[in-house]
Amino acid sequence: MSDRTYRVTEIVGTSPESVEAAIRNGVRRAHATLRHLDWFEVLHVRGQLDEGEVAHFQVTLKVGFRLEDPE
Amino acid sequence: MSDRTYRVTEIVGTSPESVEAAIRNGVRRAHATLRHLDWFEVLHVRGQLDEGEVAHFQVTLKVGFRLEDPE
Amino acid sequence: MSDRTYRVTEIVGTSPESVEAAIRNGVRRAHATLRHLDWFEVLHVRGQLDEGEVAHFQVTLKVGFRLEDPE
Amino acid sequence: MSDRTYRVTEIVGTSPESVEAAIRNGVRRAHATLRHLDWFEVLHVRGQLDEGEVAHFQVTLKVGFRLEDPE
Amino acid sequence: MSDRTYRVTEIVGTSPESVEAAIRNGVRRAHATLRHLDWFEVLHVRGQLDEGEVAHFQVTLKVGFRLEDPE
Amino acid sequence: MSDRTYRVTEIVGTSPESVEAAIRNGVRRAHATLRHLDWFEVLHVRGQLDEGEVAHFQVTLKVGFRLEDPE
Amino acid sequence: MSDRTYRVTEIVGTSPESVEAAIRNGVRRAHATLRHLDWFEVLHVRGQLDEGEVAHFQVTLKVGFRLEDPE
Amino acid sequence: MSDRTYRVTEIVGTSPESVEAAIRNGVRRAHATLRHLDWFEVLHVRGQLDEGEVAHFQVTLKVGFRLEDPE
Amino acid sequence: MSDRTYRVTEIVGTSPESVEAAIRNGVRRAHATLRHLDWFEVLHVRGQLDEGEVAHFQVTLKVGFRLEDPE
Amino acid sequence: MSDRTYRVTEIVGTSPESVEAAIRNGVRRAHATLRHLDWFEVLHVRGQLDEGEVAHFQVTLKVGFRLEDPE
Amino acid sequence: MSDRTYRVTEIVGTSPESVEAAIRNGVRRAHATLRHLDWFEVLHVRGQLDEGEVAHFQVTLKVGFRLEDPE
Amino acid sequence: MSDRTYRVTEIVGTSPESVEAAIRNGVRRAHATLRHLDWFEVLHVRGQLDEGEVAHFQVTLKVGFRLEDPE
Repeated sequence: MSDRTYRVTEIVGTSPESVEAAIRNGVRRAHATLRHLDWFEVLHVRGQLDEGEVAHFQVTLKVGFRLEDPE
Repeated sequence: MSDRTYRVTEIVGTSPESVEAAIRNGVRRAHATLRHLDWFEVLHVRGQLDEGEVAHFQVTLKVGFRLEDPE
Repeated sequence: MSDRTYRVTEIVGTSPESVEAAIRNGVRRAHATLRHLDWFEVLHVRGQLDEGEVAHFQVTLKVGFRLEDPE
Repeated sequence: MSDRTYRVTEIVGTSPESVEAAIRNGVRRAHATLRHLDWFEVLHVRGQLDEGEVAHFQVTLKVGFRLEDPE
Repeated sequence: MSDRTYRVTEIVGTSPESVEAAIRNGVRRAHATLRHLDWFEVLHVRGQLDEGEVAHFQVTLKVGFRLEDPE
Repeated sequence: MSDRTYRVTEIVGTSPESVEAAIRNGVRRAHATLRHLDWFEVLHVRGQLDEGEVAHFQVTLKVGFRLEDPE
Repeated sequence: MSDRTYRVTEIVGTSPESVEAAIRNGVRRAHATLRHLDWFEVLHVRGQLDEGEVAHFQVTLKVGFRLEDPE
Repeated sequence: MSDRTYRVTEIVGTSPESVEAAIRNGVRRAHATLRHLDWFEVLHVRGQLDEGEVAHFQVTLKVGFRLEDPE
Repeated sequence: MSDRTYRVTEIVGTSPESVEAAIRNGVRRAHATLRHLDWFEVLHVRGQLDEGEVAHFQVTLKVGFRLEDPE
Repeated sequence: MSDRTYRVTEIVGTSPESVEAAIRNGVRRAHATLRHLDWFEVLHVRGQLDEGEVAHFQVTLKVGFRLEDPE
Repeated sequence: MSDRTYRVTEIVGTSPESVEAAIRNGVRRAHATLRHLDWFEVLHVRGQLDEGEVAHFQVTLKVGFRLEDPE
Repeated sequence: MSDRTYRVTEIVGTSPESVEAAIRNGVRRAHATLRHLDWFEVLHVRGQLDEGEVAHFQVTLKVGFRLEDPE
């Protein structure tokens, strides 16, 4: 078995509901264009406020995925 | 339009239920005395434990708000 | 009253559901072998991905507990 | 002479032109309501982009000022 | 019992004598205008030098205090 | 409205003249291949020296842009 | 001579008097149950406040000790 | 000569043998799809353990490469 | 399958030869008393010098291991 | 060609005008006594304030220079 | 008045008695060979342990001093 | 015995072969002009790339050495 290499990309997922929903939204969107997503790590949790309420949670993530062997 | 200035204040919101509820509690309390709250950022998530259960989530936040133009 | 000393240990709690559930799972497991658990602090929120979905949240925690006086 | 105490507040100054202009705008606004401003430190330099150009520099600053002796 | 919210403010206490005296001076000055001071955390220990001696210890602190419920 | 996702990429802009020119050069180059650039954040300011003068400012930036909805 | 291995544990020592007393209290308590304590490093200096006075200094330490060779 | 812009991407190289082999494996894989690789920086050195032995070194790298001028 | 919990302990492995040998020495020693070692992460690489040569590499590691279910 | 070694020294350059001027002033002063200056990196941007205006920018730099081979 | 430049050097002061004594010992020694010492900042507080007691406090300091104008 | 003071200097050692060789090259060069070198700590591991291969490892080190008593 060859030695695997992974790439790590940074995304910001958003949701008006919760930190977990923002993570899941961001990961699903990344999954639409990247194969072999393997792990994530939360870098920042931020959000926009409106009239004293949280309008959106904005969760910055590092997402790691395995690179396929070049041919 | 003049160049806006914002101030950032640090608060700790608490809740026995969830990280999001602690954020919302802290932001609502800040909203009672500060106008133009615009964004927040989570600095730390901590909590008190009691008999192996989480008694309170304590979420430290930076909260940013726009300063009004001085007259 | 004597001056208390605390010890801090690092654990990783996991859950397929939420950050809070991962914290609670980790703390309950620690409670099974450590007495006087007093507080926790979140160090990292990470997770495993599977087919674009979060398989597990993995929350790294510092957990503090009071040391009993040596006899 | 008594031992002085200082307070540190965090602001975000903005300008479409430069980092220095954003710092100066933020400090002047702070000066409108706070006396004895003594020093600043840059925490972050960020900005908004519009059509590939910098719309605003946003410079987050800590600003220190001397507290007067309470009477 | 309602969910408490705390605010965190940053001060710099000074003393020609020791780190502890600088902390105590800063906290006492903060106590003159803020109620319900609850905890502190040291961020930096700095100082001014004069002829190879420490002229002042300057200790930057975060100080947390409980916000009263708004009426 | 769907929940937006953003991607964050890291670039280094350079200029012999100023920090701002290095930021603008980097952002313009990114704009040539990426749509919907929304914000930037400075990570590092470095530079090359030649005979005691600054030959180039090298400013490392994170640049955020909105991802379009996958079809 | 074999290659030594050390373990590092984290404790919080407390004292109403000084940072040094909190360090010494924590180290003595650790010494009651751990052999071969070799060094410490201060991670945080915090404390509890009561009526504008420092009730306790709480000093978080990493403490290193040599592991004995397994038999 | 125009002002160059660089992009920085994050990868994880792996090897059962050494930190250097993990770096070299990761860089070679990146070289298969990216031109003008110029420098790297190590962010983390981690690894998987199996029966008390290191199964794989996993070295997280930032890798910088020059962007070609857009036409 | 129940939700697993891991513990993370900090050790310092040493070797006169290389960083990798120091990691392996530390991990083997930990394996003598801890079961289910799963991963490590390097925190610091330090060393002692003697007459301009490296006498020992000292590598500080976090080592993670799975906790067994309590009975 | 032998393997080069560099030394890194820390300086603070100042200017009433701009961050870039403070960098250039500091680097020129270092150039008066150090040969082979090669690169710099900004660590902190601070400044003194006077009547709500920036009196001096103070930019803390790491400056790297190549060491000549010892004879 | 010309724009001043400062240099920052790193030292470790030691004392068996206190953090402040270690700072003062280190600063006095630096003063024996460096002119115009102006400020210090504490980076780390560490120490050696012997039989459960603190043998030495080791305080790592940055010390800043003004460079004289070159002639 | 008097209280010792140490100085810490920052160097970058390089080698085309390995991290350890870069450390050793840097330390030997420092040893040519500095007496009483006592310890080192790795700050960064970087390198130059050429055609997808590592041309040089560049290891930034802090190196500590004991200052002799002034006469």
